[in-house]
Amino acid sequence: MRPFADADWPAVWAVVQDVVTAEETFPYDPAMPEGVARAMWVEQPPGLTVVAVMDGQVVGTAKMGANRPGPGSHVSTASFMVAAPARGRGVGTALCRFAVDWARRNGYAGMQFNAVVETNTSAVGLYRREGFEVIGTVPRSFRHPVHGRVGLHVMYLEFDAP
Amino acid sequence: MRPFADADWPAVWAVVQDVVTAEETFPYDPAMPEGVARAMWVEQPPGLTVVAVMDGQVVGTAKMGANRPGPGSHVSTASFMVAAPARGRGVGTALCRFAVDWARRNGYAGMQFNAVVETNTSAVGLYRREGFEVIGTVPRSFRHPVHGRVGLHVMYLEFDAP
Repeated sequence: MRPFADADWPAVWAVVQDVVTAEETFPYDPAMPEGVARAMWVEQPPGLTVVAVMDGQVVGTAKMGANRPGPGSHVSTASFMVAAPARGRGVGTALCRFAVDWARRNGYAGMQFNAVVETNTSAVGLYRREGFEVIGTVPRSFRHPVHGRVGLHVMYLEFDAP
Repeated sequence: MRPFADADWPAVWAVVQDVVTAEETFPYDPAMPEGVARAMWVEQPPGLTVVAVMDGQVVGTAKMGANRPGPGSHVSTASFMVAAPARGRGVGTALCRFAVDWARRNGYAGMQFNAVVETNTSAVGLYRREGFEVIGTVPRSFRHPVHGRVGLHVMYLEFDAP
């Protein structure tokens, strides 16, 4: 796991493009141009974008930062994408743990995921194992190519809940 | 109630600046520069920004559009701000009804509010009266200048729930 470098972009873009065009897990524009995707995915400080590397290959990527500005800036958010051939090998878990650790070290009070597709059971299960809970589910708010209109979970992990 | 026009900006900016610097109701950057605020508040089509006018004065403003791109674009969102002297006179209700009607007419399936400050009881009550429900509350995710860390509600109105 290391910070994103400019030379990683072609490999990261391949992962992002694959995930976004599938339209199964992220409410992003599937026709997002490469430049827009790069500006969206590559966080500027104080946010951070990282890549997970196995055998010299980028197998996943994460971005992390504040979920909202101003009076909401003490809560972090993060997004994770894993290359299709590397799924089921713990890459997502490693990315999630990295992001939570980063957010704790940077003084955030918790981490919020705003739109977790409820049929993405591997992600939902992973987040639950890491301590996140479902705050609520907006019904039928995501158009899945196979399952139709499914819910989007808001998930949250408060780091030091009172 | 009419569409925002360029000549409305000084009056709209006065309302936006007042609301944002109070840090009581919106998780926006209180130091947001005027140009950034304008780009944020004035929606481009297919979104819409409107003003509520009483006696020739702008007393409130609303923006509305898709809540998310791509597979989430069938759900709308909206934001409302009312000038301090005009509060308690039904301006917020009129803005909310306008936005819901606009979203219905434009074929959206529902309207989602992503971050309603739980201590903003006039807004929460207004939205409930208009049929919105609280999907969930992210605890302590908003720093209120008086009440400290309070929750942010996700609220939703599905237009034609099955």
